[in-house]
Amino acid sequence: MIQFCAQCGSDMTYQIPEGDTVTRAVCGSCGYIAYENPKIITGVLPVYQDQVLLCKRAIEPKKNWLTLPSGFMECNETLESGALREAYEEVGIVPNLKFLFCTYSVSRVSQVYCLFLGELDAPEFKAGPETLSAAFYSISKIPWDQLAFSSVRFALRQYVDQHARGESYCVSGSE
Amino acid sequence: MIQFCAQCGSDMTYQIPEGDTVTRAVCGSCGYIAYENPKIITGVLPVYQDQVLLCKRAIEPKKNWLTLPSGFMECNETLESGALREAYEEVGIVPNLKFLFCTYSVSRVSQVYCLFLGELDAPEFKAGPETLSAAFYSISKIPWDQLAFSSVRFALRQYVDQHARGESYCVSGSE
Repeated sequence: MIQFCAQCGSDMTYQIPEGDTVTRAVCGSCGYIAYENPKIITGVLPVYQDQVLLCKRAIEPKKNWLTLPSGFMECNETLESGALREAYEEVGIVPNLKFLFCTYSVSRVSQVYCLFLGELDAPEFKAGPETLSAAFYSISKIPWDQLAFSSVRFALRQYVDQHARGESYCVSGSE
Repeated sequence: MIQFCAQCGSDMTYQIPEGDTVTRAVCGSCGYIAYENPKIITGVLPVYQDQVLLCKRAIEPKKNWLTLPSGFMECNETLESGALREAYEEVGIVPNLKFLFCTYSVSRVSQVYCLFLGELDAPEFKAGPETLSAAFYSISKIPWDQLAFSSVRFALRQYVDQHARGESYCVSGSE
């Protein structure tokens, strides 16, 4: 809840502004409208030959569960530069981004994952502060019951399916 | 600039929070951090047979210039539901979304366009309040000098290129 105006500090009220169709926080004093929108989580599905690199989370939520290097996109980034930043911060890799591999909208929490397929030149990495450890997994040995988020499961499922069919394209999922 | 705290109304200062790497607006009183992130513009490249549907904007910025039906994604939407909402609001169409056709990051203004290829069953539309008029254009007659935004130009360029090669895949661009 936005209780006070970012511009003048007065009380905000939730209402549908004139000409709009969505309830917003509107300032009763200066009229400022605080627009809230979904956030992008940008990241990488890192692969070396036929193995995927998964990271064990060092932080909540889902500490100790496995994830893909990804995080909130920052202002003045591109999807690609944000994905590369997260890959380097979380697991010390500089992958070659091939293409946007999947999007996954989580409407309940207003998040959209954008994950690139990222090829590695060598099976090397270095866990960053948000990562306890990391490891490469062959497709047949992905630990499906240890994945942190449904977005990670969706991305890996698509990768496995496409790998089996020898195809590669962008898939969009949601929940 | 965020001058006042949304939670308690006190003064905000811009600083790098502990454990962070990015300057944020932080409340000097309650410690609330106002995270600002890029916004998603979701929409459709509507096609009927080999023609694309372009909309003449009724509003600023770029009033009277041509665009694709698209707009800011709202909270609790998916990329797809937001794209369909915009397509219906702006030009009265209900396209069959085929796949995510392109992303285009505009880092200067912290926006990411996500556009789906949307096939129409009939060459019909109805301009909404933000659209002066709309029209179908064959690929050879796209008015390149009347396009509102670089993202629209990028999307149409990719569509024309892929059409010429008989391919379809997701491309990511940025500026």
